[in-house]
Amino acid sequence: MLEPLAPLYVALVHYPVVNRRGELIASAITTLDLHDLARSSCTYKISTCYIVTPLKDQQTLSDRLLKHWCEGIGRRLHPERELALKRLSVVESIGAARDAIETREGQAPRIWASTARKYPGAVAHGEARELLRRDARPVLLLFGTAWGLSSSVLEEAETVLEPICGNNDYNHLSVRCAASILMDRLLWDGR
Amino acid sequence: MLEPLAPLYVALVHYPVVNRRGELIASAITTLDLHDLARSSCTYKISTCYIVTPLKDQQTLSDRLLKHWCEGIGRRLHPERELALKRLSVVESIGAARDAIETREGQAPRIWASTARKYPGAVAHGEARELLRRDARPVLLLFGTAWGLSSSVLEEAETVLEPICGNNDYNHLSVRCAASILMDRLLWDGR
Repeated sequence: MLEPLAPLYVALVHYPVVNRRGELIASAITTLDLHDLARSSCTYKISTCYIVTPLKDQQTLSDRLLKHWCEGIGRRLHPERELALKRLSVVESIGAARDAIETREGQAPRIWASTARKYPGAVAHGEARELLRRDARPVLLLFGTAWGLSSSVLEEAETVLEPICGNNDYNHLSVRCAASILMDRLLWDGR
Repeated sequence: MLEPLAPLYVALVHYPVVNRRGELIASAITTLDLHDLARSSCTYKISTCYIVTPLKDQQTLSDRLLKHWCEGIGRRLHPERELALKRLSVVESIGAARDAIETREGQAPRIWASTARKYPGAVAHGEARELLRRDARPVLLLFGTAWGLSSSVLEEAETVLEPICGNNDYNHLSVRCAASILMDRLLWDGR
């Protein structure tokens, strides 16, 4: 395991994202995504994965799920779920995640955005690994649900990471799998 | 993208696998796993991902899903799904997958098994990459659902791959995410 100098945080963003027609939406929580992101975050020792949604009912749903597995009967039956799910933190906006990190780390994080599309100036994953080792400022890496992060988020990010591509221009990984692969590329040192 | 000498096939195995008490079971199909494995296979140019289940109702369910996206209304609405899902092939056993590959390639595949546990003699992923480049025999890489492949499958495999580990002994990735990471480690050449 690569020990980065910079603490890496991730966020699964449900707003602002776009639908398949490119319209701005708030997407619904997929409970399975919460489990998968928590399990992958735990594997790569990412301390917090923010679940970003401004929708109150979706926050309530997420909180219920977390309570079940971290405090309720689920904790007794599957103790390893708590290890993972306690890393999730439900917040209403990307800004709230940024503020929480700033409070914890004493400095604001760099915002990195991921995308499945080609983006001008996007940074290769090997270079992003190096950035994590060279600069101690914390990083908040954003993953978009639905059809991806809105263009405003990409424009405001300090860094946009290259998409995960095979060699056939197919780029329709699920966000669960894309996030896992990206964590592995950024943090695994067996390469 | 690494172009391996050996054609790599994968299989998502629902039998024989074990439950959390280590008992032999046939697990249920998770339709989302089918989508995710197909999308990851497509990303890494894996021509066929076998869905192994001996249960007729589960085969029927899988076939319905594939028909919907590859022939039905789903194909018109989301054409990129067909690109991925047409790579799935539902078979009743690991042996049936092996036979299908033998018919297609003219020689039987090496069987590689993945596991989330430490296993004596397990092969590191970097070494497995090299094996794919040095030896042209096809490979069938097995992923177990539920609590993993049965011990008989691991014992009969030519090669067992090391688990995907962070450095905290937590090894509870979802099979969707584990399979994606392993495909990336074996086939991505951006390292």
